[in-house]
Amino acid sequence: MLNYPNAKKKYASANMDNHGKRGMSLEDDINSTNAYYLEQNIAVVYKKPTPITVVSVDYKSRTTARITEAYYKTPSTTDYNGLYRGKYIDFEAKETSGKTSMPLSIIHQHQLRHLAKVVEHGGIAFLIIRFTTYDETYVVDYRKFSKHLGVINTKSVKYDWFKTNGVLIPYNYIVKVDYLKIVDLWIQGGYGYE
Amino acid sequence: MLNYPNAKKKYASANMDNHGKRGMSLEDDINSTNAYYLEQNIAVVYKKPTPITVVSVDYKSRTTARITEAYYKTPSTTDYNGLYRGKYIDFEAKETSGKTSMPLSIIHQHQLRHLAKVVEHGGIAFLIIRFTTYDETYVVDYRKFSKHLGVINTKSVKYDWFKTNGVLIPYNYIVKVDYLKIVDLWIQGGYGYE
Repeated sequence: MLNYPNAKKKYASANMDNHGKRGMSLEDDINSTNAYYLEQNIAVVYKKPTPITVVSVDYKSRTTARITEAYYKTPSTTDYNGLYRGKYIDFEAKETSGKTSMPLSIIHQHQLRHLAKVVEHGGIAFLIIRFTTYDETYVVDYRKFSKHLGVINTKSVKYDWFKTNGVLIPYNYIVKVDYLKIVDLWIQGGYGYE
Repeated sequence: MLNYPNAKKKYASANMDNHGKRGMSLEDDINSTNAYYLEQNIAVVYKKPTPITVVSVDYKSRTTARITEAYYKTPSTTDYNGLYRGKYIDFEAKETSGKTSMPLSIIHQHQLRHLAKVVEHGGIAFLIIRFTTYDETYVVDYRKFSKHLGVINTKSVKYDWFKTNGVLIPYNYIVKVDYLKIVDLWIQGGYGYE
């Protein structure tokens, strides 16, 4: 089922070099993965647009309204949500250049609250964290993460914690961040999401 | 369960007058309804931000980046999605001033394709259509709507069709567009979503 026989070249990054460095941002990799999932009819997951407050618009030209003053807003939710095998999934993705830990400040408090709500209402909530120094991307069940935050009292989460409690996503040339493989394990393996 | 005993005044529109005209846009009404659902812990549904392509940003001030040139993009999906009773829900909402029909052009083709994908992957997909002339708001199961489009060959859908095949949402001062009541019927009533 997750064999992707019709994988197409277009999902491959043009920035790849021979040293295995991806050279693409986590966001690009996830967007390319989601495009792949969509085209292969595996799942329907999108990144939400960045919320922007528009202050003034120039309507001079009829065809294209030109926004001339606008500001970025703090997002109310996570960046990604969607539908997979009849389940609602929701996640936030972050990169960190930290070597020994990820600063908690890179995730907004209301994003964590949103993920908690998702769990409460029967959805699947997780984080995708990339340690750019090691070029490693981990998927972490939000319930596990939140339990950890309840125990520790700190402003960061250790790299070692992710190594132990997250699932490392093997790099795949076609499917950059194949996070649904891990979601599959959760659905099948008694994580309470069935 | 859907009694809303702690309903708060803030969800009520300030624009209401004695003639029962709501005076608020469908979008405002749905946003207020979703805020209510969220606060009463009934469901987690958000409107997606409007997609905007940012061309240039002024970073002079450190605290607030000012976007000085940007353009509206065509959305890839519908405006609303979320999680209710463990189900993924997804819908598009449109107002029409048409008296006898709703022009199909107000809904993008790719939005219809997106809703079809949602159904295919086990989510609940629907439309919320308001006929502003009559101040009537209908919820329509997307599968029903799409079947109708397959049969007719037209650029509009008749008002009478919505009257017969949609569900009229009774206006509620607190919960403006209480669409989850209809979703409840679908979940309970054998619409194939269980």
